[in-house]
Amino acid sequence: MKIYNEPREIALERVENGDVTACVVGAGTIGLPLATFLANKNFSVACYDKSSERVKQINGGQVVFEYHEELKRALEREKISASTDPAVMRSAELIFVCVPTPLTHDKAMDISILFDVGENIGRNISAGSMVIFESSVAIGTTAQVRAKIEQISGLKCGVDFGVAYCPERYNPGLPKEIHPEIRYSEGDSFHEQHRFDQIGRVVGGADKKSLDLAKAVYSTIIKAKIKTVSSIEAAEATKLLENIFRDVNIALVNELAKVFSEFNLDTFEVIEAAKSKPFAFLPHYPGCGVGGECIPVDTHYLIKQAEDMGIETSLMNAARSVNDSMPQYTVSLLERALKKKGRGIQGSNINILGAAYKKNINDTRLSPAFVIAQMLQDMGANVKICDPLVHESRLNGHESVSLPDIFDRADAIILATDHDVFKSLDFSKSGSMRTKIIIDGRNFFVRDALEKNGFTYRCVGKS
Amino acid sequence: MKIYNEPREIALERVENGDVTACVVGAGTIGLPLATFLANKNFSVACYDKSSERVKQINGGQVVFEYHEELKRALEREKISASTDPAVMRSAELIFVCVPTPLTHDKAMDISILFDVGENIGRNISAGSMVIFESSVAIGTTAQVRAKIEQISGLKCGVDFGVAYCPERYNPGLPKEIHPEIRYSEGDSFHEQHRFDQIGRVVGGADKKSLDLAKAVYSTIIKAKIKTVSSIEAAEATKLLENIFRDVNIALVNELAKVFSEFNLDTFEVIEAAKSKPFAFLPHYPGCGVGGECIPVDTHYLIKQAEDMGIETSLMNAARSVNDSMPQYTVSLLERALKKKGRGIQGSNINILGAAYKKNINDTRLSPAFVIAQMLQDMGANVKICDPLVHESRLNGHESVSLPDIFDRADAIILATDHDVFKSLDFSKSGSMRTKIIIDGRNFFVRDALEKNGFTYRCVGKS
Repeated sequence: MKIYNEPREIALERVENGDVTACVVGAGTIGLPLATFLANKNFSVACYDKSSERVKQINGGQVVFEYHEELKRALEREKISASTDPAVMRSAELIFVCVPTPLTHDKAMDISILFDVGENIGRNISAGSMVIFESSVAIGTTAQVRAKIEQISGLKCGVDFGVAYCPERYNPGLPKEIHPEIRYSEGDSFHEQHRFDQIGRVVGGADKKSLDLAKAVYSTIIKAKIKTVSSIEAAEATKLLENIFRDVNIALVNELAKVFSEFNLDTFEVIEAAKSKPFAFLPHYPGCGVGGECIPVDTHYLIKQAEDMGIETSLMNAARSVNDSMPQYTVSLLERALKKKGRGIQGSNINILGAAYKKNINDTRLSPAFVIAQMLQDMGANVKICDPLVHESRLNGHESVSLPDIFDRADAIILATDHDVFKSLDFSKSGSMRTKIIIDGRNFFVRDALEKNGFTYRCVGKS
Repeated sequence: MKIYNEPREIALERVENGDVTACVVGAGTIGLPLATFLANKNFSVACYDKSSERVKQINGGQVVFEYHEELKRALEREKISASTDPAVMRSAELIFVCVPTPLTHDKAMDISILFDVGENIGRNISAGSMVIFESSVAIGTTAQVRAKIEQISGLKCGVDFGVAYCPERYNPGLPKEIHPEIRYSEGDSFHEQHRFDQIGRVVGGADKKSLDLAKAVYSTIIKAKIKTVSSIEAAEATKLLENIFRDVNIALVNELAKVFSEFNLDTFEVIEAAKSKPFAFLPHYPGCGVGGECIPVDTHYLIKQAEDMGIETSLMNAARSVNDSMPQYTVSLLERALKKKGRGIQGSNINILGAAYKKNINDTRLSPAFVIAQMLQDMGANVKICDPLVHESRLNGHESVSLPDIFDRADAIILATDHDVFKSLDFSKSGSMRTKIIIDGRNFFVRDALEKNGFTYRCVGKS
């Protein structure tokens, strides 16, 4: 008998012992850590992924990610395997959905990937299974996909199978063994304290049984509290709130950065000072743009849904506009600095440090670095990108430059990502630059050190 | 010799011993606690206030505020006195400025009060004194007032007198001895942990001597860290950031409250769930409006300044609009509830619980309760306000109703302030109401308990 149809006591005992088969649909940034932790808690885990390359890498233990040692252990114990064949869902009692949920061209959530998954699950699910969604979605999406599964399978949610929603909260990292240049300088202890299994989760269920089972499953792999809410929609809204909160607060400091720099103020000094307030403040920092598949995307889900209902979302709209304006603002800092040297962007050699959307990771999705690169290219600059953590093939077609060659005949360097590895740059060796300009998009470099080496230094958030 | 002209060692020693004369200009919510703490650290403190009533109350030890016992002690020791005569500034070595800074009609900071103060100080200051500003201001205001003092006095800042800016961070409260009905139900430990002297401060100085002296002064009365910044303007911006942060985050949950309630979601449940994220989230709560002389005001300072410089502030504008829309939204909840009962606002008896802008205080400045009351009155309702903490004369001309009479022939009750004292309301005794409607603007009441008593219950942020 499959887990959802087992008597409660037996079901919970089997979950506790990891005596359950699972399939993780979408073995990417979110799915693979989940699959790995499940496998190491004794669950028998099949990963389903469309990409044969990814599947090969997983089965070979060659994925470069934070828990690659844990994955190897699970592979050795034969508790995990990957496949491009959706039929691996058939034997699964727990089906986890961890696929990406990008935007459509009109900035609504693209539900097509999830509907494809729903169809696949509908064709392969058998009675007694349970489907748990982790992908960030617009409110009500899980119910739509559930309906699709019911329609295709002929099974009924709440009777034949269970459904729960547990939004991912993973803060990705890269393994220091493989990337010794990552020092997690300030964030070391932060990252150690917020590993995959130390971040509490929120779960909503289609029915009580689904909720109890999902809570039990996550309790086996997560050491922190599993918080239950009254509905799947409440859990969906929770994830949106968390990400929209970040989007709006980053937008606020970005807007303030523009204002404060006109007052010759250092926005970072002001934020540090405000941090001394013991309540009612949480620091966020301005920068050259917000990337990744969460923050810049999730706000749009809700904006679009509210728009469809005729509800105004002026604050969220403003947040998106402000954050989307930061690459342009960064380019304008460069333009002004070049102008002072009697140059323009047209024909200049601009090297960009960092392609990843966040420090010390290799994920480049919706990275502002690419927006900046494209803008400069469209203005006639020769643009190259340097990111030692990112494979050349993932630079969105932009030319790459190695870190040792970063100064070579460049007119300006823009830091777009604050990878620790860039701390090793020796600016005293920048003699080969044509014009010595640094545009710092992440408050990364020290002005004095650069000015000593003859650089013009401009930083988003500083005057 | 006065403190600013003393040799450094002697000046710091005198400050440490409280062997300094001080004048606090503006003995209100912010000035009086400051004066009281200074006096109890042995400083000889004169309070200057325009209001003869306030001066009489202070000298008689009759002010109802959190530190009234401490004030009495200082009065007994003759370390504090109040006067309406600005000449009390003359003997002061330290002049603290704690006057309110409201908005002009076009929503810029009204600098006239501070200019008046600057003139008064200019006429009365003598060489060797130091002026410390605590009022929240637009960036650069302190420098403008300093120039006014220089112009009138003929003294030079940095030579003859010192200037510093240390924004107030006090979270006001009322004394439980006088108001036993205040239980600080959930906030008890919060309030105890954030008393006046436990909240760290930020200080900027016109010169190093001013900065060092101001830091030393606050170190005598504040147990937490005194953080120094590089300029007075950085300290001014810090206070604006802290308050704008709150304004924007409250606006976000207010905007979300409108969206989520259309999805039949409980916004408070969603916020509680998001709180389980161990990083990158800070809860704020939706409500019927944002009042007080800080949050709704300070954002406008910076909007106006940015506007004058041609910088866009779409996010801050949106925050202000959203928060300003909440009284209207609250009224719309009432309107819909009345309509379902076949009634309208015209001719209805509406009683409002709470006039203060925040729970458990008696400050009614810019309270949303008055905005709601005025809207309803303009729509033809008979409006009464009940606030046991607020004197009748401070109800902005609205009629008052006592708590025991709150149900009497009312069609609806709107809770605008979540004073603990309203927990004592017994809804089983609401038989005299004409229509049983509760509009909860602060997520204060429990739906089930009210519905059991036949009430229609609507709450901002709930469906």
